[in-house]
Amino acid sequence: MSNPLRVAIAGLGTVGSGTLAILRQHEKMLEQRTGRPIRITAISARDKNKKREHTQDLRWVENPIAMASDPEVDVVVELIGGAEGIARELVETALKNGKSVVTANKALIAHHGIALATLAEKTGAVLAFEAAVAGGIPIIKVLRDGLAANNFRRIMGILNGTCNYILTHMQDTQASFDEVLKEAQNLGYAEAEPSFDVDGIDTAHKLAILTSLAFGCAPAIDSIYMEGIRRITLLDMEFADQLGYTIKLLGIASHTNKGIEQRVHPCMVPSDSSLGAVPGVFNAILAEGDAVGNIMFEGRGAGAGPTASSVVADIMDIARGAHYKPFTLPVSSLQSLPFCGMDDLRCSYYLRLNVIDRPGVLAEITTIFKNEHISLRSFMQHSHAPDEPVNLVITTHETQENAMLRALAAIGKLESVKEKPYMIRIENL
Amino acid sequence: MSNPLRVAIAGLGTVGSGTLAILRQHEKMLEQRTGRPIRITAISARDKNKKREHTQDLRWVENPIAMASDPEVDVVVELIGGAEGIARELVETALKNGKSVVTANKALIAHHGIALATLAEKTGAVLAFEAAVAGGIPIIKVLRDGLAANNFRRIMGILNGTCNYILTHMQDTQASFDEVLKEAQNLGYAEAEPSFDVDGIDTAHKLAILTSLAFGCAPAIDSIYMEGIRRITLLDMEFADQLGYTIKLLGIASHTNKGIEQRVHPCMVPSDSSLGAVPGVFNAILAEGDAVGNIMFEGRGAGAGPTASSVVADIMDIARGAHYKPFTLPVSSLQSLPFCGMDDLRCSYYLRLNVIDRPGVLAEITTIFKNEHISLRSFMQHSHAPDEPVNLVITTHETQENAMLRALAAIGKLESVKEKPYMIRIENL
Repeated sequence: MSNPLRVAIAGLGTVGSGTLAILRQHEKMLEQRTGRPIRITAISARDKNKKREHTQDLRWVENPIAMASDPEVDVVVELIGGAEGIARELVETALKNGKSVVTANKALIAHHGIALATLAEKTGAVLAFEAAVAGGIPIIKVLRDGLAANNFRRIMGILNGTCNYILTHMQDTQASFDEVLKEAQNLGYAEAEPSFDVDGIDTAHKLAILTSLAFGCAPAIDSIYMEGIRRITLLDMEFADQLGYTIKLLGIASHTNKGIEQRVHPCMVPSDSSLGAVPGVFNAILAEGDAVGNIMFEGRGAGAGPTASSVVADIMDIARGAHYKPFTLPVSSLQSLPFCGMDDLRCSYYLRLNVIDRPGVLAEITTIFKNEHISLRSFMQHSHAPDEPVNLVITTHETQENAMLRALAAIGKLESVKEKPYMIRIENL
Repeated sequence: MSNPLRVAIAGLGTVGSGTLAILRQHEKMLEQRTGRPIRITAISARDKNKKREHTQDLRWVENPIAMASDPEVDVVVELIGGAEGIARELVETALKNGKSVVTANKALIAHHGIALATLAEKTGAVLAFEAAVAGGIPIIKVLRDGLAANNFRRIMGILNGTCNYILTHMQDTQASFDEVLKEAQNLGYAEAEPSFDVDGIDTAHKLAILTSLAFGCAPAIDSIYMEGIRRITLLDMEFADQLGYTIKLLGIASHTNKGIEQRVHPCMVPSDSSLGAVPGVFNAILAEGDAVGNIMFEGRGAGAGPTASSVVADIMDIARGAHYKPFTLPVSSLQSLPFCGMDDLRCSYYLRLNVIDRPGVLAEITTIFKNEHISLRSFMQHSHAPDEPVNLVITTHETQENAMLRALAAIGKLESVKEKPYMIRIENL
């Protein structure tokens, strides 16, 4: 196995440059660890003329698709991004030609993972995507190898560093969502078009992949309930804090007796819990296995170094002769489990109702809860001027989501309720 | 690869029974995930007549050493324990005969890992010991595979659940070390002879293995500075809390420009840090890689389920055809790096001095610090009756260990100092 593994890199943005840096700076260390030289035999990016480091003496390829049939290439590293277009064509063509592919492209894997895995199985190529989920945390290898003896009940996590940065920073500086988003955009932590991050789409892509690996089913991005963080206010953060909670955007997948439940939404989690304490741009994943119990991983979810750490680990795996299936099980063995809607979800809730405080209001509200068999856990009302709107802060015991939604709809129609009720789900972990 | 992998289990205590349970209860799941049936073809334990679950229809072997040459066995799972005796003989003989070995035996690997790895390399057998470090946390596979692209600067962690339970419980219940130890012994969390755990020996075994994998050198248990938790008092815990710290027993290995530094001792760590918040019997490991940055793993470090999760993951690895070297690099490629003594250590210190509070005492003490170029960071003195001993609580900026020890020796000789000074190192992470 001392013949070199020949690698082509398509896309030289943040992750591509980081990958190039590790492969060139640690060339000897990687060879020693894998028992085989890893050579970069082609690179490609949108703009050839941009000044870049570590590209000297490397062969430049105008059209990355050519890498997929290049006789000097064993592994194509796709770091272009996007579920369609060049990235998809490159990966498809490479796998068809029997070339292994390493990618950090969560959208591509979440949407087309099964089709691509089928291609890979046909030609015996490896399709590896460790960097697609949680950056530097090697959660895909951990689920496939280190925790392989477990039946998983649940996997959940903070999967988007941008959202976690925004939420942490709102709390630390008492600035609003819009202010912190603007600042994050100026610092380069958030995109000019932030929807992908703040509306939960990126988290959903990653969750779809985690669900697949944890429960042995095909990724099903369309079955994910998705809600972002735009509506999180400082007021709710303050009330959360008083209740001992912190607000985090979580992706959660559970294997229930009704099927697989997948959801992405802001959650209140105990501030002193492992997930509640995850700061800034960090990611964290909590898995519950039948043998191992709860196990938690925390690390950087984005950035050149951490993401390239996972890309290069995949390349090293291939250099060592790894031959696993992309989703661990062969495509034909992936189970088709039913996916649950949100109606069946059972959880605890935080509610904030903006009401005129006059006699009878509380009775109206509590009657609605009673009719839906919703049991309250705590109740706070802040001092105010008489006859002015006041915030009622309520937390509930575990109850059914559809009952809660009916109750909120009924409450929203009360004359004394001045704003649409605010609701945030609580995960006590 | 559909011929069964034939496994023999030697030792049916907590971990052995847990391993048996997973292999039998999840037989189909494991076969699906590895593409190959895993069959138990022999079992052995000290007492044949003990009532056990999951042993029906299994072949009992009187002398476990016979497993090492049994033609019906591909993999020997050694769960007997101990660095010498039967465990060592069984593993040596199995490897010599080309049979792969899976073990949870940290003492064996820390003391004889290199000799055993050399045997394994000769015959091409696999020697796997994921369960030897941090129970259910798959840190060995993570260092070898998921973080393989990193050069590590430091690896540290809470590696002994018994000590973490004792320290957490002392703090929670305000009971002394001796009281909590007794309670832990009654609950079965601590051994009747607790030295292995509370004096840091178990942590040192695990640290020696982590050091080897992180830095690519042979395990060197004898180069580890070791101090246990017997001397931790509630008073120091209370002062730590006032300073924002929690006391944890840590194993720490650093790659410094002078060589490898390995130490096991109680540390004050920030209470709100990832390691500071690790509760009860949990283990946690923090690694610092040049690409990935800081990454943290937290999970159960002992018990039937978590440890068996790692044992079975190793068996599955072998079923899938893994052929890695025990310490990742071939024995001949392991570096012989110099190991540093504690003299060169630089860290911050917590000190508690029991002194008679009379004019001039503080001047004597601060003059000693000044002469050793030790810079103080904080200073607390608790109210007291005049002329009675008082606790001076001091924290220092980063300084050299040997200067600190000289200062403490000088302080200990002062007439006004009534007890040997208490010192706990601070890790600000």
